[in-house]
Formats: sequence, structure tokens, C-alpha cells
Amino acid sequence: MTRKAAIIGGGVIGGGWAARFLLNGWDVAIFDPDPEAPRKIDEVLANAKASLPALSDVPMPPIGRLVFAKTVKDAVQDADYIQESVSEQLALKHRVYADIQANAPDAPLGSSTSGFKPSQLQEGAVNPATIFVAHPFNPVYLLPLAEVVPSPASNPALIERAKDILRDIGMFPLHVRKEIDAHIADRFLEAVWREALWLVKDGIATTEEIDEAIRMGFGLRWGQMGLFETYRIAGGEAGMKHFLEQFGPCLTWPWTKLMDVPEFNDELVDLIAGQSDAQSGHHSIRELERIRDSSLVGFMRALKDRDWGAGRVLNAHDAGRRKAALSGTDAAAAPLTLAHLQVLPGWIDYNGHMTESRYLFAGSETSDAFLRLIGAGMDYVAAGHSYYTAETHIMHLGEAKLGDRLTGSLQVLSADEKRLHVFIRIEKDGAPVATLEQMLLHVDMNAGRACPAAPEVLAHLFKIRDSHAALPRPPATGRHVGQRKG
Amino acid sequence: MTRKAAIIGGGVIGGGWAARFLLNGWDVAIFDPDPEAPRKIDEVLANAKASLPALSDVPMPPIGRLVFAKTVKDAVQDADYIQESVSEQLALKHRVYADIQANAPDAPLGSSTSGFKPSQLQEGAVNPATIFVAHPFNPVYLLPLAEVVPSPASNPALIERAKDILRDIGMFPLHVRKEIDAHIADRFLEAVWREALWLVKDGIATTEEIDEAIRMGFGLRWGQMGLFETYRIAGGEAGMKHFLEQFGPCLTWPWTKLMDVPEFNDELVDLIAGQSDAQSGHHSIRELERIRDSSLVGFMRALKDRDWGAGRVLNAHDAGRRKAALSGTDAAAAPLTLAHLQVLPGWIDYNGHMTESRYLFAGSETSDAFLRLIGAGMDYVAAGHSYYTAETHIMHLGEAKLGDRLTGSLQVLSADEKRLHVFIRIEKDGAPVATLEQMLLHVDMNAGRACPAAPEVLAHLFKIRDSHAALPRPPATGRHVGQRKG
Repeated sequence: MTRKAAIIGGGVIGGGWAARFLLNGWDVAIFDPDPEAPRKIDEVLANAKASLPALSDVPMPPIGRLVFAKTVKDAVQDADYIQESVSEQLALKHRVYADIQANAPDAPLGSSTSGFKPSQLQEGAVNPATIFVAHPFNPVYLLPLAEVVPSPASNPALIERAKDILRDIGMFPLHVRKEIDAHIADRFLEAVWREALWLVKDGIATTEEIDEAIRMGFGLRWGQMGLFETYRIAGGEAGMKHFLEQFGPCLTWPWTKLMDVPEFNDELVDLIAGQSDAQSGHHSIRELERIRDSSLVGFMRALKDRDWGAGRVLNAHDAGRRKAALSGTDAAAAPLTLAHLQVLPGWIDYNGHMTESRYLFAGSETSDAFLRLIGAGMDYVAAGHSYYTAETHIMHLGEAKLGDRLTGSLQVLSADEKRLHVFIRIEKDGAPVATLEQMLLHVDMNAGRACPAAPEVLAHLFKIRDSHAALPRPPATGRHVGQRKG
Repeated sequence: MTRKAAIIGGGVIGGGWAARFLLNGWDVAIFDPDPEAPRKIDEVLANAKASLPALSDVPMPPIGRLVFAKTVKDAVQDADYIQESVSEQLALKHRVYADIQANAPDAPLGSSTSGFKPSQLQEGAVNPATIFVAHPFNPVYLLPLAEVVPSPASNPALIERAKDILRDIGMFPLHVRKEIDAHIADRFLEAVWREALWLVKDGIATTEEIDEAIRMGFGLRWGQMGLFETYRIAGGEAGMKHFLEQFGPCLTWPWTKLMDVPEFNDELVDLIAGQSDAQSGHHSIRELERIRDSSLVGFMRALKDRDWGAGRVLNAHDAGRRKAALSGTDAAAAPLTLAHLQVLPGWIDYNGHMTESRYLFAGSETSDAFLRLIGAGMDYVAAGHSYYTAETHIMHLGEAKLGDRLTGSLQVLSADEKRLHVFIRIEKDGAPVATLEQMLLHVDMNAGRACPAAPEVLAHLFKIRDSHAALPRPPATGRHVGQRKG
């Protein structure tokens, strides 16, 4: 059954939460009195739709239903999860919580607050045990981090449930065990921010120079390892202790101005705003968002390939979905439709078409599904036998573009105890965009040579082969590259 | 003529400099009295060779010659550039500079110092005008940033020459206009470091939790935009000034402990070292280096695809090389080695082999690089023309496994105004793991039909075709699937 999230406060952060829930198949009700809220949410949702699916290698669930509620009561009714993202004013948050808990006192109620502690948020609440911090990072629909901060008054079981919900929408809940102003990450951001204000004010560096000093160097490091793991490497074989002893003394050196805070006056604001215009003013905010999101998708896909950091979170999220996506294929006396795919943003090359290698990927998805069907899946391989692809001929016959839904069907051309010759059609709206003719060999993986497949596998295979013998042989079979058509 | 760099001090940083110069075709002489230096340098160089070429889409120059010099004098003799990376002790640096300048008083002399100002480095020097800060970031062979800091005593023309040299080895020289302790980036690192020490000491978070708080959130942002551009987006259409006015008040809130410095005692060292062991101790430092480098390559390639940030630096560096690569093609009639890849965890199927579709991916990387080489890259496509792949025949000839390093080379079989018939070899240790025979068609993307390529593209293409006409035709060409060998 579809679950429901209530989003209270529909700015950039609330909109990011809404997009994440919707694209992960949750229904969402938003409450925000701002008449501009629907437009703002639409913009965030458009950005999310253009980027989040590119991180998934399994079909996404159908998008949830979005409702703009007229009252907090309507929004939170029957909600399985409530996220508050109103302005950073404690009194306002308390009023909103009273309204929420008058209608839904038991639902997990996360706050996007950057700075307040959960015990502050809970003050005077009807049910303090359900209120906690769930602090996300912009863009909420892409960045996995959510700092989950309970107070001693929180219900531990509810916190665990909330963390499961955050994982369900692809996030990485970081359980912050002791509450503290600004939690963890924002303390670092604040430290860097204060130092940066000094550097600009003192004319050491412009906003652009500061940004380059970050993104050309340690910023790249911090996207994949944090502070300590990076320094562990710097310490080398001598170890972390050696590193610490070497760098400890710097603590007393004048390497930061952070003992002090710059005066925050109009002059400083104008200086920074002017430098920022010079640096980035030639891009609109929408353009900057797209550039940012596209780069973040690139980083996260790089990490996904390596099953590291944020990429590990994505892989775990996919694995949970794959099971659902694979169930429900049945054999038939016709080419077997085995794969259903959607062309994701990350599959597109600079021509705007699906990249070449994704056609072969679609073919592999189809043949893998076929092998599972005849009993030569994961367990079979784990026991030491497998089909290897020896040869493939691909015909590119059409163009697959962003968002296209493709099917992969397979016809057995011939098969014996060791060889399996198949023809795969990748189709869009019933018309082929590519065909793949493949020769697979059954191998003993330990001996490293071809051998007959197991009798139960051959029984399934030969049954399908015999029924497919009645099918017309596709004209594209037996072709070599450059051969004239017809 | 090959140029020479002298590297004084051969630790991780000096080794990183040496690797960057060598892989960019410079000869390098290293001086380091440590008998362990050659082993350490070899290790850094092995890491660099395994990662830096993966960032290049044009053939790299031949690797330079590495010499371990017995004296500073031997090292700096005839050097076009000198980089000092000895320990952070000012008196030691002064002694080393005296030795260097007694033998090479006029060469640019950059220091890797994290903290000292150039005017401090210049004190008492024979020729202060040539001494400046060139502060790199580990791993030096991958991260583009070098903070270049002159003092008023520096020679501006020499500083410009040094910046050109840094660009020549693929770096991004950030000219810091006013000298200051710890330059720019390390001030931020120091601020975060001090805050992190407090968080660990106070038991708020472990080293692992802090690292997750960074790399799952703002760390990903900072690899592609810095602090100010990120916040500019957060400010939205209302602008940077609005953002500043909203967040200015936080400066007086207790969001950082940075007004204070934690006591750096054994207890704190043990706490951090112990937590770091628990977090990362199951990986050796070498493993962590490989994981880091592989992820950095992934990030930088993602940015390169988008021509943004560090990726823009890489593209500019490639562009400078492309001309040299093209002019070199008529010298030797050989298949062009265009792609360098490593088999990543995400590329492996449940057989433990590189998935089928990654062979085609490797082929695409090779043909894409070829198209860029002949002038049919991104700009050409943006202007409405492109080569589409019509047909591909893949022979699977070997097994690529996790961590294997592959190269992709391309031979032109035939080409006319519209058609391009190529043969691609994907090789591991010089032996093919797969070959791809491809037919590409040149198309007018708006009209949606084949058309002749631009004259300047054809000029490059035909020159390569004509030189490749002398090469033997690979026996695997013209095959169809299932055809007997021989």
C-alpha cells in the first residue's frame, strides 16, 4: 500500500523532501500558506525528476500523488511520516508542532532545522517523544545525508522507524547520539563560513578564488572520504598517531582567525554580493542548479561504480528494489519478453541518445533474465558453472532517448549441451531500436573450459529451443559488419 | 626538448610532484638524503601511473627520465623548475635554499609549505625574487590545485612563468595576491580540524561519524562548487544579498567552538587514533590510496564530461596536447592508443568478470576519443553533426577482472566522406580481451540523415586512414556470429 508523507513548509528544503518522497513512490501532502509554494515546489520537482532517476539502475516505483493541503490538519491526516521545514524561528516551529500534534500526535515528526536541538523543539509539545531533528542537505533529492538527532525524551523505537523510512527514500540517516547546537556538519560549514568572511573582508581572496581553493583541492577529497580518513592516508604507514603528533602543534599557530568574528555590516554584505555576481552572475540560479545536480549525479555514479561512500548507499537502495523488479516472468512459445527498462538521464550521450554500451546492457539484462529463467542464475553460478558470452553482433536500428521505455525479448536460435545461440530484440513501442545476436558457451568455471550444462537446465532450455524452432529466423542473423542489407 | 624539474625532498608530497612532472614528459632529478626515498617515490609513482593517465583522452607524452641525485647541486643543475618539499622547519628550508641558489640562483623555486609566507621563505636568500609558495594538495598527481603565493619581493614575470609550468603539468595555479599564514585552503582545513577535535573530545561524534557527515553531504557539493556558489544557489532568485542577510545573525550563535582550541594531550591523540583504527583499520594505507585515487578519477571524469571545475582544467590540458598528438600520427603507422581504463567493482558481474556491456563501453570510450582527436567532438556535435554507430561486432577473447587495467586502441579499416569503418582492440597487458569492429555513419542530426563530414574532419581522418592502410587487416574483421575460426 502506498504510504503518505506530510511536508509542512514548502520552500527549497520542503520541496526537496517532497520530491524525494514522490519519486520513491510515496504520496505527499504539502502544507504551505505561501501562494507561491506550488510554483516553487514544481520547480524543485522538475529538477529532481531530471536527476534522481539517473542514480537508479533498477526501475523506479510509480511516482506518488502530490496534494497541496489547505490546512495542516488535511496534510498530516493518516501520514506515516511528517517533515517540518518552516523558517528557523523556534516559536513558529512550536506553533506548527501544536497544530500537527492536535491532529496526528503519534506520527514521526522530523524537523529540517539547521541549528536547534531536539530538546528545544520538543518544549511544550503534546507528544515530545515523536519530535526529532532530521536535517537534510540541499539538494535534498540528491544528497543522501540526513542528520537524525533525538533527545533523551525521544522514543528510540520511533527513531529507528524514522531511519528506516529515510533509507526507504534512499537517504543515509546519520544518528547523532548527543544533541548539540547545529548538529555536526553545519558546525564545519559555519567554521569555514566565518573564516571565508574574514578572507574576503581582509581582501586576501575573492569569493571566486575561495571557491576555486575549495573545489580544485580538498573539496574533491571530501566527496569520497571525510577529514579523518583523508588524514589517515596522509599519515602513511607511520599511522594516525604519527600524523596527529606532527600536526598537533599547528593548533597554536595563527592559521585561522576563528577566535574572532568579523563585523557583519552592509559593507561586507555588498562586498560579498558584488564578488559573487562577478563570479557566477552569468549563470541564472536555475542554470547553476542544473550544473550542480548534473555534477552530483556524476560524482555519485562514480562512487556507485566503486561501491564506496554515497555510492554504497545507492547500491543498497537498488538491491532492495531489484527483488521486486525481477519477480513475474513466465515462459511462452514466442520470443520471451524478459526485460523492462527505462532510459535514464545517465544513459544519454552528448548526442542526446542512449549511449552505445547501454544497448548491450539492455541485451545483458535480457539474457541474464533468460538464464535465471532456465535455472542458470546466481546459485548455479555460485556452484561453479555459468554461461559466458563469446560473441555479439549488434544492429543499431533506431534511437532511444531520455525517458523511453524499452523491452528486451529473446529468441533461441539454436542450442546444444554447450552452446546457446540467441537473438535479442530491444524495442520501443513495439519497434526495434537494436538487435543483438549472441553466442554463449556453457563453462566449468573452475576448470576454465566449456562443458555440458546441467540436465535440469538443458531440459528447460531445450523445451524453449524446440518451441522457438517454429519461429521465423530473424533476417539480421548471420550478418557481418558492413554487409549490405536485404 | 625535454625539460627538467628538480624535486628537493622526496616524501609523499615531493613524490607526488615528481610523478606529475614525469608523467607529463618532464625529466626529474630528486634529492633526498633519506635512504628510503627511492622506495617511497616508487610507491607514489606506481599510484600515479595507475590513475593520472585515466584522466587523459589524448595520448600522454613519453614518460620522463627519473634520477636520484646525490647532491642538491646535481639535482638543480640545468633545472627549468625547482620544487622544495622538505619538512616544515623554516631554518631547514633556509639552509636548503642557500644550497640550491649557490648552484641555480635564477630558476623558479617553489615551496610546498602549508603554512609559511613567501616573505619568510625569502629571508636571507641570495635571490629572493625567485622564491615563492607553490602549495599543492595530496595526492599531488591528481588534484589540480596549487596555491601560488608571491611576496612583494618576487619577480612577477618569473611567477607568470611558474604558473605556465604548473599548467603544463595539468595543474590549476591559484594566484594568491596577498600573503597570509597558511594561504587560503589550509585555513579552512584548520578551522574544520579544530572543530572536529572538539566534537571527538566532547564525545559528540566519532571520526567515522564526522567523515560520513562530510562525504554524504557538503563534501559532494564542494567537489564541484565551492562555498559561495553553493550558497548563491541556496539564496535562490532573491539573490546573494538576501542569503547573507538571512544567515548573518548565525555568526553570533554558538554554532562553533572555534573561539577556543582543545587541549592537545595524549588522551585526545589516543581517542582519535583508536576511532580511526576502528573506522578504517581494515584497509591498508595502500588500499585507501587506491580507493581515494579511483574515486577522484571518477569525480574528475564526471566533471570533465560536464566541462566544469576541475574537469575544465583537464579539458584545457587535453586541448593543448591534442595538436601534438595529431601531428605525431603520421610518424608511425600504428593503431592509436586512445583510452585507459580500470575495471571497477561496479563493472563486475556475478561471474567475477567484467560485464559484457563494459566491453562496449570501453570501445565507445576509444571511438569517442578518436572522434575528438579528428575534430568531431562536443563542439562539432553541438553544431549539428555527429558520427553514429550503425553496427558493432564484438569478439570476447579474454577475461577482464576487478582492478585490471585496460587500454583501447583504434585502427581505421576504411573511411569515405560518410562512412567510417574501424577496428578497436581492448587489451590487458598487451593481450586482447575483446575486439570491436564498428561501422559509423556521419549524420546531419537536424535532417536525420547521412551526409559528408566537414572538410577539416575528413582531412584529419583521411590522413590517419592513409597511414593505417599500411597496417595488416585484423583476421577478426568481416566475421559473423557463429562463424568458425581460421
